[in-house]
Amino acid sequence: MHRERFYTLSASCPDRVGIVARVSGFFAGHGGWILETSLHAEPPADPAGSGESVGRYFMRIEIKADSLPFHLAELRERFRPLAEELEMDWKITDSAVKKRVVLLVSKQEHCLYDLLARWKSKELDIEIPCVISNHDTFRGFVEWHGIPFHHVPVAPDNKTGAYAEVQRIFEEVRGDTMVLARYMQILSPGLCAAYPGRIINIHHSFLPSFVGARPYHQAWAKGVKLIGATCHYVTADLDQGPIIEQDVIRIDHSDAVEDMVRYGKDIEKTVLARGLRYHLEDRVLVHGNKTIVFR
Amino acid sequence: MHRERFYTLSASCPDRVGIVARVSGFFAGHGGWILETSLHAEPPADPAGSGESVGRYFMRIEIKADSLPFHLAELRERFRPLAEELEMDWKITDSAVKKRVVLLVSKQEHCLYDLLARWKSKELDIEIPCVISNHDTFRGFVEWHGIPFHHVPVAPDNKTGAYAEVQRIFEEVRGDTMVLARYMQILSPGLCAAYPGRIINIHHSFLPSFVGARPYHQAWAKGVKLIGATCHYVTADLDQGPIIEQDVIRIDHSDAVEDMVRYGKDIEKTVLARGLRYHLEDRVLVHGNKTIVFR
Amino acid sequence: MHRERFYTLSASCPDRVGIVARVSGFFAGHGGWILETSLHAEPPADPAGSGESVGRYFMRIEIKADSLPFHLAELRERFRPLAEELEMDWKITDSAVKKRVVLLVSKQEHCLYDLLARWKSKELDIEIPCVISNHDTFRGFVEWHGIPFHHVPVAPDNKTGAYAEVQRIFEEVRGDTMVLARYMQILSPGLCAAYPGRIINIHHSFLPSFVGARPYHQAWAKGVKLIGATCHYVTADLDQGPIIEQDVIRIDHSDAVEDMVRYGKDIEKTVLARGLRYHLEDRVLVHGNKTIVFR
Amino acid sequence: MHRERFYTLSASCPDRVGIVARVSGFFAGHGGWILETSLHAEPPADPAGSGESVGRYFMRIEIKADSLPFHLAELRERFRPLAEELEMDWKITDSAVKKRVVLLVSKQEHCLYDLLARWKSKELDIEIPCVISNHDTFRGFVEWHGIPFHHVPVAPDNKTGAYAEVQRIFEEVRGDTMVLARYMQILSPGLCAAYPGRIINIHHSFLPSFVGARPYHQAWAKGVKLIGATCHYVTADLDQGPIIEQDVIRIDHSDAVEDMVRYGKDIEKTVLARGLRYHLEDRVLVHGNKTIVFR
Repeated sequence: MHRERFYTLSASCPDRVGIVARVSGFFAGHGGWILETSLHAEPPADPAGSGESVGRYFMRIEIKADSLPFHLAELRERFRPLAEELEMDWKITDSAVKKRVVLLVSKQEHCLYDLLARWKSKELDIEIPCVISNHDTFRGFVEWHGIPFHHVPVAPDNKTGAYAEVQRIFEEVRGDTMVLARYMQILSPGLCAAYPGRIINIHHSFLPSFVGARPYHQAWAKGVKLIGATCHYVTADLDQGPIIEQDVIRIDHSDAVEDMVRYGKDIEKTVLARGLRYHLEDRVLVHGNKTIVFR
Repeated sequence: MHRERFYTLSASCPDRVGIVARVSGFFAGHGGWILETSLHAEPPADPAGSGESVGRYFMRIEIKADSLPFHLAELRERFRPLAEELEMDWKITDSAVKKRVVLLVSKQEHCLYDLLARWKSKELDIEIPCVISNHDTFRGFVEWHGIPFHHVPVAPDNKTGAYAEVQRIFEEVRGDTMVLARYMQILSPGLCAAYPGRIINIHHSFLPSFVGARPYHQAWAKGVKLIGATCHYVTADLDQGPIIEQDVIRIDHSDAVEDMVRYGKDIEKTVLARGLRYHLEDRVLVHGNKTIVFR
Repeated sequence: MHRERFYTLSASCPDRVGIVARVSGFFAGHGGWILETSLHAEPPADPAGSGESVGRYFMRIEIKADSLPFHLAELRERFRPLAEELEMDWKITDSAVKKRVVLLVSKQEHCLYDLLARWKSKELDIEIPCVISNHDTFRGFVEWHGIPFHHVPVAPDNKTGAYAEVQRIFEEVRGDTMVLARYMQILSPGLCAAYPGRIINIHHSFLPSFVGARPYHQAWAKGVKLIGATCHYVTADLDQGPIIEQDVIRIDHSDAVEDMVRYGKDIEKTVLARGLRYHLEDRVLVHGNKTIVFR
Repeated sequence: MHRERFYTLSASCPDRVGIVARVSGFFAGHGGWILETSLHAEPPADPAGSGESVGRYFMRIEIKADSLPFHLAELRERFRPLAEELEMDWKITDSAVKKRVVLLVSKQEHCLYDLLARWKSKELDIEIPCVISNHDTFRGFVEWHGIPFHHVPVAPDNKTGAYAEVQRIFEEVRGDTMVLARYMQILSPGLCAAYPGRIINIHHSFLPSFVGARPYHQAWAKGVKLIGATCHYVTADLDQGPIIEQDVIRIDHSDAVEDMVRYGKDIEKTVLARGLRYHLEDRVLVHGNKTIVFR
């Protein structure tokens, strides 16, 4: 919610002495005003074993843009040598450049209305270049908001063509992030692989419980006392991608599956919106099949 | 979420032996199939003292409509003698008759979008005869949904006229319930008094903390670790009416007031929607300044 | 928390018209003052199919003991014909008869201290005729409370003997309920089968996720954002018995397994205590592999 | 939960460019291995006004002890010039030096049992040099644990003497922190003033609601739908000191005050234990009447 323009460095590298000193020293050396710093040292997975022996260091730093004497391109150029020395995976983004988020929906309202309300109020300060759906249901609603709508039916015998079309549109509008806002189709492995860490799904269970179809029916049959929702990156492995955010809500014996569906919608949309925001603000760093989320 | 038509008896009466037997006996005697029963005995406030010496009994019973050999009007007629004998406050409603809910909004999107999504998906199975606002902001959005929109400005020097107009519209559309969905005006005492138990507000704090204006600023200044929202019936006493539903969300020192506002919206809309649903399903019985909520 | 003596009827029967009328009529006919009533109609599992076509009705009713003109034995005798006519599974318990709860523990303090504090303060108004452990660790602590302590080692080559001894002690002290308060052994199928619905376990995960050993390690590896605990009845099927109560707590990437263990203890003891209380107050009715919990 | 010895720097200073670079540079220059870093920039309270124009920077850094080429005393000596240059309030503590925590209790078990269980399992790795109580109730229990117990009655006509005795004992045992674990007496202003930021209380409401006596009765009368507990530093202003941690639990109309008391105990002990741990690990930095808590 910073009003001023800022840059965000998000990075990870092998852990060693002096990383923070080097990185913060770099910014201080140029007079950079740091607005927010988040750091995390992940210990080696198996310190005692013969395997991985070095931990990994994660960081996210926001720097006020006008405190630096140069612009983004030069910042990146000047930071590069240090990043290479530290063997970093890194990127620096600019708060003035809005992310381009493509929504995929089916026939359920709740996540779509919720995300558009956040977009309209600028709580989510993003571009939505288009909405894609396998149904034509929300064309009018989306277009009323001035957002292009693409109906891409997914027929059982033409899934390949459908996902090619989704990808074509996503490329055409130069999408940064694809959000499956209760999109009731399973993306092709190829599409998943094309955008690692850029496709976000909301699954209507507290994963890893109740993978796949009809999770509320599964939850009802099991008799759990809380139901949940999980926002995660999509990988080719169904409902197994890195988890970004989760939450639960209490139910009891008097709740039928329909009640659970209704309660669940409230957490689905909240969890999706939170997870998406973390992602858009570059607060999520993927580490294997897990995430570091600098909330 | 019952698919079949049903009647709902909601009632309270002085506590005594045999209430449930008499009431359930009445329905059983006519072959009435009971779908759901909720009962609560509230003890006398001061059992030891010289004051109130009898508790009060509350009930809510859903009966399958086609299990009874007569229609609603006759059901009410036949139930009346028993209700009078038991000195009941009571009503019987019909699931086939949709409640008419008038929304009052100002310039914030979140509750309006949320309620309209629930209405559109029939999660809230209600009529929305119109939306009233002190701003013209949402005219297009509301009208796109096919719902009439009334812009009733509330000028400091003409509040009386404005509230008279709100009341006139509410009467004209035969409203059952008025929902202040982040309506940023304080209703006149007269309007509050005209519809006891029928005007629902969402207040953006965990009452009784932070009554009145700018509760998130108050919460920030106090340094609380959770912020909340409260859905309550409106009375002439600002933010003091019977509480229907509340919830909270965790914050920390890194959250500025703007972050709290953003987090708060998520609980505001959820708490309002829950409280409103309880009200519309006749699950809320008012007892003095408190509520019994048969969830 | 009633101070006066009361009887609790807990029962289930095939659903039909008039159950509540018949049962409440029975009590009203004898002047019985009902303190609390909880009712639940479970619809048939497969109403459309050729299978189960009748739902099941569950109830729990508390009646003030001295409002009835006879004692418990006679109450049971008089109620029996109605119970048989309605094909009930039923029991009536007496608040004046304390349940006898045997605790099984290993080497972790948290659940043991927690339960003994509740017992000492009479929040749990029970008898603890003894504590059984596969270690001698807590002998002094337990005996200081005036409770007999039995050390029953469970050697890999003598599990049968160990569980026979546990069962012998449980029978000898006339135990009603066995509580596995972080007892780190898997009971034999025979012992599980001997006391259906009478052995309560706390599992340190949000079941059905992370069954079996080291659930916090499993949760860490999966990268979930909440961890949980589950209180359930023990059956021969490991960690699969009917769930009584669950809860979760938020964690994040900075929490190592050791932190999760520490956070987890807080929900383990709370969830166990809540589930145990529901059980002891006859609030839990088992229905297949699920529970109705009249909280 | 680090197993290795580490030092913890906790500090705050006026915000300016380069703080992190200077501080992390200091440690890196000596080969210091940083285990955990938490940073927070608090903006000026009134940036636009004529008042406070500079924000304040807060930090907490854990450094592996044996990665530094000198011991704690020398570390402090070497760090001092930088701290003075940055105008820091600062301290460095040593994980190998256990904090000395004096518990004050009255007649309720739950917090005492809870804290002693955590101490016994070393989850709280502290010394408890003694327990002080205005009742003799828990002498045996405390002494069984090998902890000295002091009965200091607080008679209405000798409060001054009683609190002088409490202070004398606290000084004698060289206490670091005083914990009011449901101690049902109001400390004297003098005692509060003697140990700012060192006396921790658990209040049985979600402050700022329901200050003072019988908060559950107040909550019941108000009809709130959640009840809470607040862990805070004690100041001379009753229940108004800086809040460290809070939590809530859901209740409903069926819960009498006694039920609320019972539910409340579970959050009281959890919230107290969490807040105390944050304090003991130097995760709490006080800023005016608020806290920064680096969880």
